[in-house]
Formats: sequence, C-alpha cells, structure tokens
Amino acid sequence: MVVVLKRGVTEEKQEQLIHWLQNQGLQIHISHGQNLTILGLVGDTSRVDMDLVESLEIVDSVKRVSEPFKCCNRKFHPEDTVVEIGDVRVGGGHFVQIAGPCSVESEEQIVGVAKAVKAAGADMLRGGAFKPRTSPYDFAGLKAAGLELLKLARQETGLPIVTELMNIMDLELFADVDVIQVGARNMQNFDLLRELGRLDKPILLKRGLANTLKELLMSAEYIMASGNERIILCERGIRTFSDYTRNTLDLSAVPMLHELSHLPVIVDPSHATGMARLVPPMALAAVAGGADGLIIEVHNDPIHALCDGAQSLRPEEYAALAEKIRAVRKVVTA
Amino acid sequence: MVVVLKRGVTEEKQEQLIHWLQNQGLQIHISHGQNLTILGLVGDTSRVDMDLVESLEIVDSVKRVSEPFKCCNRKFHPEDTVVEIGDVRVGGGHFVQIAGPCSVESEEQIVGVAKAVKAAGADMLRGGAFKPRTSPYDFAGLKAAGLELLKLARQETGLPIVTELMNIMDLELFADVDVIQVGARNMQNFDLLRELGRLDKPILLKRGLANTLKELLMSAEYIMASGNERIILCERGIRTFSDYTRNTLDLSAVPMLHELSHLPVIVDPSHATGMARLVPPMALAAVAGGADGLIIEVHNDPIHALCDGAQSLRPEEYAALAEKIRAVRKVVTA
Amino acid sequence: MVVVLKRGVTEEKQEQLIHWLQNQGLQIHISHGQNLTILGLVGDTSRVDMDLVESLEIVDSVKRVSEPFKCCNRKFHPEDTVVEIGDVRVGGGHFVQIAGPCSVESEEQIVGVAKAVKAAGADMLRGGAFKPRTSPYDFAGLKAAGLELLKLARQETGLPIVTELMNIMDLELFADVDVIQVGARNMQNFDLLRELGRLDKPILLKRGLANTLKELLMSAEYIMASGNERIILCERGIRTFSDYTRNTLDLSAVPMLHELSHLPVIVDPSHATGMARLVPPMALAAVAGGADGLIIEVHNDPIHALCDGAQSLRPEEYAALAEKIRAVRKVVTA
Amino acid sequence: MVVVLKRGVTEEKQEQLIHWLQNQGLQIHISHGQNLTILGLVGDTSRVDMDLVESLEIVDSVKRVSEPFKCCNRKFHPEDTVVEIGDVRVGGGHFVQIAGPCSVESEEQIVGVAKAVKAAGADMLRGGAFKPRTSPYDFAGLKAAGLELLKLARQETGLPIVTELMNIMDLELFADVDVIQVGARNMQNFDLLRELGRLDKPILLKRGLANTLKELLMSAEYIMASGNERIILCERGIRTFSDYTRNTLDLSAVPMLHELSHLPVIVDPSHATGMARLVPPMALAAVAGGADGLIIEVHNDPIHALCDGAQSLRPEEYAALAEKIRAVRKVVTA
Repeated sequence: MVVVLKRGVTEEKQEQLIHWLQNQGLQIHISHGQNLTILGLVGDTSRVDMDLVESLEIVDSVKRVSEPFKCCNRKFHPEDTVVEIGDVRVGGGHFVQIAGPCSVESEEQIVGVAKAVKAAGADMLRGGAFKPRTSPYDFAGLKAAGLELLKLARQETGLPIVTELMNIMDLELFADVDVIQVGARNMQNFDLLRELGRLDKPILLKRGLANTLKELLMSAEYIMASGNERIILCERGIRTFSDYTRNTLDLSAVPMLHELSHLPVIVDPSHATGMARLVPPMALAAVAGGADGLIIEVHNDPIHALCDGAQSLRPEEYAALAEKIRAVRKVVTA
Repeated sequence: MVVVLKRGVTEEKQEQLIHWLQNQGLQIHISHGQNLTILGLVGDTSRVDMDLVESLEIVDSVKRVSEPFKCCNRKFHPEDTVVEIGDVRVGGGHFVQIAGPCSVESEEQIVGVAKAVKAAGADMLRGGAFKPRTSPYDFAGLKAAGLELLKLARQETGLPIVTELMNIMDLELFADVDVIQVGARNMQNFDLLRELGRLDKPILLKRGLANTLKELLMSAEYIMASGNERIILCERGIRTFSDYTRNTLDLSAVPMLHELSHLPVIVDPSHATGMARLVPPMALAAVAGGADGLIIEVHNDPIHALCDGAQSLRPEEYAALAEKIRAVRKVVTA
Repeated sequence: MVVVLKRGVTEEKQEQLIHWLQNQGLQIHISHGQNLTILGLVGDTSRVDMDLVESLEIVDSVKRVSEPFKCCNRKFHPEDTVVEIGDVRVGGGHFVQIAGPCSVESEEQIVGVAKAVKAAGADMLRGGAFKPRTSPYDFAGLKAAGLELLKLARQETGLPIVTELMNIMDLELFADVDVIQVGARNMQNFDLLRELGRLDKPILLKRGLANTLKELLMSAEYIMASGNERIILCERGIRTFSDYTRNTLDLSAVPMLHELSHLPVIVDPSHATGMARLVPPMALAAVAGGADGLIIEVHNDPIHALCDGAQSLRPEEYAALAEKIRAVRKVVTA
Repeated sequence: MVVVLKRGVTEEKQEQLIHWLQNQGLQIHISHGQNLTILGLVGDTSRVDMDLVESLEIVDSVKRVSEPFKCCNRKFHPEDTVVEIGDVRVGGGHFVQIAGPCSVESEEQIVGVAKAVKAAGADMLRGGAFKPRTSPYDFAGLKAAGLELLKLARQETGLPIVTELMNIMDLELFADVDVIQVGARNMQNFDLLRELGRLDKPILLKRGLANTLKELLMSAEYIMASGNERIILCERGIRTFSDYTRNTLDLSAVPMLHELSHLPVIVDPSHATGMARLVPPMALAAVAGGADGLIIEVHNDPIHALCDGAQSLRPEEYAALAEKIRAVRKVVTA
C-alpha cells in the first residue's frame, strides 16, 4: 500500500501517522520528493481501511498495490484449477458445455431437452427450479418438485445437473445436486457464500450485473476461505447504458480473470444478450476468446416457455451451434 | 402493451398471433399504417412475456405502456403514504432525520452517538449489527449483541432504531427493532422481501447499485403484495463510470419516484459519496430536491471506526449540518 | 409512433391533440381500453419531437416504433453493402485486416511496420498523423508530414492507408488518403460528418465511447444523407463501470448492427482493451462473433512508441494472430 | 508515480528499468518489502506513459499519485477563480443565473424570453444559434442570423449572451459574443479547445456525457495552456444505465470539482434531466450542493419550440423558481 502525503505536512503530524501505521504491524519506507512525500507500507495491508487513511487531513491519496484476494489469486497458485464433476472436467484445458431450459416445467419438457442436448454433445444439464423474478406476479419455479424432475432427467441421460440455490434455508434440498449455481443477484449474498464454502460440492458463481472483477473474486474468496475450492466463475453480461441488448457481454473479463485467478471461467451468452438470435455469435466469440465453457438456454418450445423464452435456442439450433463450438475450440487450442 | 408487426406479414400469421393474444384474455385494437401494423393490447398485460412476443418472427418490437407495479403505483393511490414509527412520521410532508454509526461497536459508542444525534435533532438512530462486507476478512458486525446495544441506546434516548437484516434466518432477532433495513445488495433477494411483506413493521428499502427505478418499485411491490404497506424507499447512489466518488448519487430519482409512487423517499448521502466532506453538500441538495428524509453516518471517533470511517461525520459536524438541513427544508416547503 | 393518454382525459383535450398531430401530416388510429387510450400515429413521424409530446399534460408516455434512420437501415436496403478500396473489399462476406501503429513516427518505423503487416497478410495499413490526446502536453502526431510518410509506406507495399481526420480544416491534406477515419470523440461532430458526406471516399466511423447503436447509425445517416454511402462501422469499446480494462468491448454490437443496418462492421480490439495481451483473444472473439474485419495496433518497438505502446502488438505477435484469425474465420463461415 | 515490481525480478532487470526512468529525468526511491519492491518516482512524471510502464514484463502495476493537470489544479492555485463578464461575476462567492431558450427561433421569441428572464432576475441570456442534433433531419439552428438576434436581445435587456460554438471555422462570427459555450459532444474536440485558449473571452465548458472529472479538467487545461484562464465548468448529466431521465445528474461533481480545481462550477438541470418538471427540484438541489450558478432552459411557448421543448420552463415557472433559488442560496451561504 502506498500513502501519498499532502504538501506542507508538519514533521510532527507525519510522525503520528507513521507510528499509527507501525502499530498495525507494518513497515514504512519513506520517499521524499520535491512536491510529495510517499510512504510505502510493507506487510499485511489487507486489514488496513484504505478509505479511512485516505480521509485523513494530511493524506493526499492512497493506492493499494496488492490484491485483497488470496485463495483465488493466481500469484499464489499459478496452476489452473480443474473442477471435476463426475467424469466432467472444467478448466486447465478442459472445456464444458452446459445446456438446458431456463426453468424446469414438466417431466416431458426436462427429460426431452436433456436427451436433446446430450445428443448434441452437452456435458451437463442446466434447469431452474427456484427462479428469481423481478415481479412478484411472475412464475417462480417448481421448487422441490423441479429438483426431482432434474434428477429424473439426470437418471435418463447421465448428465450431471446444475441448478440455482436462492436461499440458505433450501440448502438440504440441494444435497443431491451436482453443481450449485449462485445467481447474479446473489453474488454478494455473503451469508449464502459462506455456507456454500462449507460444502464439498462445485459452485457455479455468476458475476453480478454491476460488479467488478475484483468483487467477483472477493465473492469466490468468501467460498474458498470457508474451505470449498471447487468454484467455476461465470461472466453473464453487465449493466451499461447500451440499450439494444438485455445486458452487455463483457468478454474481455475472460482473459482478465484467467490472468488474475486460477479458477475456470465460463460464459452465459443467453442471459448476456437476452435474444436467442445473438446467442450463437456470442457463444462462438466466447470460445474464441478463451472461455473454459458455456452455459446456454435450450427449450423444446420457446414460445410456450414459462420464463425467458425469448433467449432460448431450439434443440436443433443448439445442435448446430454445439458443432461449431467444437470446431472453433479446436482451432483456438491448436 | 403495443405490438408492432414487421412489414409484409401475411394475414394468416397475423391472425394466429391475434388469436394467441386473445386467448390470454386481451382485447386487440389494430392500426394499419403504410409501413406498419400496430396492435394495441388492452386488458391485464402484466403477465404477458414482452421479450417472448418481441422474439416472434413476425414482430418488429413491443412496448409496454403501463407499469407492471400496482400496489406502489401512484396512479392507483394518488395520496402520499405516511409511514409512522411511534411518533415519527415519514412522507406526506413529514421529514425524517436518521443518524448513527455504520456499525454498532460498543455500548459507549452507540449510546454516545445516540445522545449526540438526538441532541442535534435526529428523529431515529441507525446502526449496523449485521454488516455485508465485500471481503471475508473484514469486520462483519456484532450481530445479536449489536442489536441489544441498539435497544439500550433506544432506551437511553427514546429514538426508534433502524438496522439491517441480511438473512431470513435472523428474522426473529429483529422482532423488537423499529425499522428493518434492506441493504442495496439485497434489494432483489426476493425470498427475503416476501418474508418482510408478512410483518407489521416498517421497511427501509435501499435501491441496488445497478437497479432502475422500476426494479426498485418492483421490489417494493414484492413486500406490498405480501401485505406490508409500510415502506420507505432510499436512494443511496448508483454505479457508473465516474470514479472520483464511491457511487454516483442519482438525485433526480427523488422527484421521479414521487411521481411514480406514493411511498416516501429518503436519501443516504454517506454511502452515495463515500467521503465525509461530500456528505453536507449532498445532504442539503437532497433536502432541496424534495427528499422526505436523510440517513447519515455519524461516528464519535471516525479514525477508529471498524467500518466506513471515511464517510462518517463527527457529532459536531452532524449538529451543524442538521441545523442547515432544517433551514433548507423550511425554504423549500415555504 | 404510439401515444398513450392519461386516464380521465377529457374528450376536448384529446381532440385538440389529435388535430395538432393531424396538422403535422399524420394519420391517427385510436384504441380505447379500460384504463388507457392509445393513439397510433401513422405517416412520417421522424420529425415529431417525441420528448415534447411526452411532456404534454394529458400524455402518459410516447413510444417510437420505427427507427429514425433511413439510408443505413436494413429494412429499406436488405442487401449487405460492400465497401471497395482498390482491390480490397469489406462486408457482404469479405473480411478485412487493417494493421499498423497508433502514430506514424518516422519513415523507418512506418515502412518497417507496413512491410511486416503486409507479410503477415494485412489488407490495409493504419497509422495516425493527427492524434487526439486527453492531455495538451502529450505528443499529438506528425500531422502533414505523417500523411506523407503513410503514402510512402503505401508506395512501398501497395497497402491502402487508413488515417484519422480530426478537423474539417485539414480536409484537403487527406485528398490522397484511401480511407478517412472518424474517431470515437468525433462521432457526433456533425459538421465534420456532413462534410465527409460530400466526398467520394470510404469513411471508417468509430462508435463513441458512450454512444448507443442508434446514435452510431444516426451519425452514419449524417454522412449518407449528404451522399456518401461508403461507410464502415467500427466497435471499439464503450465506457462502463468495469475498471480492469480501458474500455468494455461490446461485442454483441456486431450482430445487432448487422441486423439493424446493411453497412459492414469491424472491431478494434486494441482500443477496446488497452492491453496488448488481451488483443489476441478479443480479436479472435470478434471474428467468431461475425465481424467483417479487424483494426489492430502493431508497432515494431512498443516500448519506445510515442503513443499507446501498451496496447500494441509486435510484428511477430501480429503475424501469429493473423494466421489464427484466418483459421477462425474459415470455421465460422464454413 | 509509484511503480510496483513483480516478485522474483532479477537485480539486473530492475537496474535496467531504473536507468531508463532516470534517463527521463526522474529520481527513484526504492522500498523493498517481503513480497514487493516499490519504486517511488519523483520529478516531472507528467510525460511518462503510465500504460506503457505497466505493460513491461517486470512491472506489476503503476499508480499515478499526482494529477496530470496543472493550470486548473487547486493545489497550485488555492484561490477561487472569479470569471467576470461585464458586471457579472461567477465563482468565489458570486452566483450566476443563466436562462433562455434552447434555440433562438425569432426576434419576437428571443427578445420576449430575454425580457422575461431578466425580469425574473437572470444575469445572462442563453440561446443556441448553432445546434448539434443527433439526426441530420432535425432543425440545426438559425446560425449567423441567430447570433444577430441574440445581440438584439442583449441590446434590449443588457444581458450578456452565452451561445454554443460547434466549429472553429465559425469562430469569427462569435467575436461579439460574451461567453462561448463548448457543448458536451465537443468537450474533447482538442483543436477547438486549443483555439479557444487563444481568445480573451470566457468559455463555458460542459462536461461530456461519459467523461470523468479528470478528463473535464484536462480539457480545461487545453484552454488554459494556450493562455485563456477564464473558464466556467458545467455539470450537465452523465450517461448511465438509469433510464427514466435523459441523463443522470452527477451532483457530487460540484463539490469534488471545487476541491480539485479553482475554477467556478455551474449546473445545467435542463439537459441533465430532460424533463421540465424535474428542473426546479434539481436546480434547487444544485444550489444547496454548492454550485456557482445555473443554466436553465426557458421558452415562452414550449409546445411549439423547435428544439428541446420538453425540458423548457415557461417564463412564469422560471420566475417562481428563480426566487426559490435565491432563498436557498441565502440559506446555504449564511
């Protein structure tokens, strides 16, 4: 951490600050310039309140020079993490395709879609049983019954299942789920994250729609600090001024997250765009940009879907896309 | 809801769409133009999936012309809601000053600050017992013990207390709290909102840092749809590209929310700016802009505060500000 | 255009509004609902001031249902535009690679880079002679001398040249330039756009860093309305809250612009990310996402570049990338 | 400037970097920590390319600790600048009210509005003769004739006139204008700024809709570096995800700019909100928040205004507001 002092600070006030910082266990290196005095703080600065130091009368500005995340930081763990879900692997050169409907609606629907996406080459099945909806009047998912239908679809196809948990109180219902998804709106539900850190189960952690990469990694840190290191990060679009698409896919987050962290990073082009016809180009772009996987909404009857029909591909559209995904993946990893 | 069809749509396809919409209980009015055919949908369109209709091949675009929120909509409830907390009133011409530390830290601290803000004219006491923190390594509040200290401060001063609930599982600990705060990160924690709707207790609902006014009102709708109408909305800054302040205070939200809804609207200049020296000008701006109240962080010893010290006013600074707030309020309501 | 009236509007006021709109040459179709009256406006609504109508006391809201751009609208020109620059073609299935340094610095530099990028397969040479710089103290380009060096490089390699014009007064210096670039900061310099519309020369129009797709197309419309239809659109990143990269590449703009307009769309991954190491993944993503070309910064000595060295590839890095670009392009167009 | 080196950097590479920096005339202070080596750069770092240094292989990150603006920096000029226009003063405790129509439309209109706003207490008259319009099909101002009408209105009322210049080539037409406005879209039209720096005439510099405060100050720096120190900064709303208002008024920019710079800062609530009914609350908020003045759109017949009628106040509405503005100003400066 670097602290820049204001011009004309008295020796006495400077000494006071230095003592206060030393009392927090830090070593201080001082650089005197013509216009500025700079203090270099060495030691564990992760607990120093940067905003507070910055607000002191004699301080001009403060800069943090080391990231506040440790467990998920590539600097301390240079090797890629590979998350394993049964035979499926994600990260470290392993690519995963996750597909399925926004919501589980019926046995016929979920088993039908599961068989179709498996035939197209998907590695895992997604499907929502508990759905966060902006309006209290919208369909909020089949809940426990939906989870049972997902397990049925898994039994029929062998595909591991990924589904969203919204509430700690529902946790035991998820005991037999393969991957628990934390949705964008829950990315900073810290109690939930801490609880998931106690499980021995992979977590798919979606970036919040207004969260920085650092915040996403701090949320992964919550889970890892509680002991669970099996995390898959997911970029799913951020909120910007741009108004033609539902969100703005921030694809450069993929290589940037790979640089900052050893965790695998996948992309959700369905939520990022909100429009089925934009899903194929953005899915291919994500593969070319280095993503470790994709999570894509597929529905056998989008026009009657109870949720997000507008962004769902039909099974035959997904099959055509899945093939292109493999072809692009082959070229970029050649 | 208005549906614009693409050019050159066949009669047959148009009829199919109209039947499908009519089956959802809607009346359809058709306008044929040279280039466009427009369908006006009349009836309860709140359950029509706008994105889905927009994704149909024959549809050019869809526009919603009535808001999806009902209970909190001023169109249906033209009178201002006045929320009462004991003798304190908010809304409908009643202005409230809420003040106190970010976190409850000790009896001495919270009782001291409570007495000081009461002397300065505050109407309620704020203080966090459960604190959402971006980092798992930061102080997360005194929890149940913090709530007890708040009640002690209330006993000493008579000030009603406002404090944040992060987790449904903690709800019973909050039985004797006067106003429950829903923080920005929980604005779309829908299970939590629904649960709060079952209480007979005022809710202070903060706008999420990337949420639109419509989304804020939909979250209020969750609470109201479950039966609790005692809601105070709070603007606390949004996330933008602007990087000098912690957030960007969106002050025009205040008159806009008053136009859209009958609920009272207060402003949190402390979180909006993140810098104590910007709190007084933004607090006065909020009053002049028509807010029904303010919630301001005050700490007796900001330099040693365990949380958000940088944005806290000292009691004497708050006292000077509180007096100016009253003077500005007097001028704008004259 | 659709105008929604408020509830309880008197017949008389409604008639006044209808007459006023009819006087502007529009036909009005009326839909009466239980809660709402909707006016459908048919005819040339491009000159109706939507904000003004919305501000009328009896009006609830106004929605525009046809785009205000005509010349660049795919609805009226379904065929892809192919822009030709000598033997080079862009759009309608033709892909272009443009490469070169941020700034022209010397004969040795520009000719050296030109030969290197040609050898790597580039189709055109970029290089700035007039440079917009945020600080008045930064290097602002070699100006006229830079243009001469670009022509020399063209002579040596046969590559057409692309360079930025900042100011109408410099226009005659650009007479022998192959493609004139309009930078992001000038996207709404309307006098400049109008002037460029009078030329018979291709224009590379970059999206402004806070401009919507509609605004980009309206700026293209300025050029086309003055007679010049040879426009290449360029996505180069937008400004968002995300702070790890210089800008946020909005890649879904590519398929969306292709849907809205018949003009070719290329991507600038160098400015979008600001970091050389993110350029290859984002360049490949752009190709996979359907871009009609790329414009990439290449410098023979980034460490001594006078401008934007941090985002420039070395010639050998570009050569490796160019090959991958061709491979991905082959797969996605197969 | 502070340069943080990566862990495990060899002595030799470190020495190379230090020599290279010393060759640029800088002194280097080194702090060795357990995990990090920090270089403190002392001297004139304003020409060091921060992005480039950051891209070096051995460098972890770079932080600039002194602002790149000098002339407009309060650190070097602690006294408030007072801009004088005839008898009118702005800044340093002097408050200015500027009012008038978006566009000059006719003698009757501009003289009528000028008389009305003068009667209401305005200090200067605004009015656009050259109008930037998003669409090439919209009214773009009366141009030279409009400037003549403004001068006529000045003659009738004595009010100095403020009007926008879009293009250097029109500069001589503005010789007799009192204050030249640089619009938001031209904030980074650097050639224009440099030219205005050569004048002895006050400049009203509007913040671009996606520009940071630092960028705004760098644009002021362009003008000041060329010799013109009479600059008034103007906050007029920024572009964010928030979609109810035209822009988002960033009011905390006012006290922040006052902290960073000695230049006066005014607010334009008309463009910031785009809705006449939001102008009064935001105007009063700006005064309470410490602005040095306001620029407000007033039209005698908003419904027939050729531009921005939706955001214009009627003269009687402005008169009522102007009185409240004075009352709030009195309270906050008491």
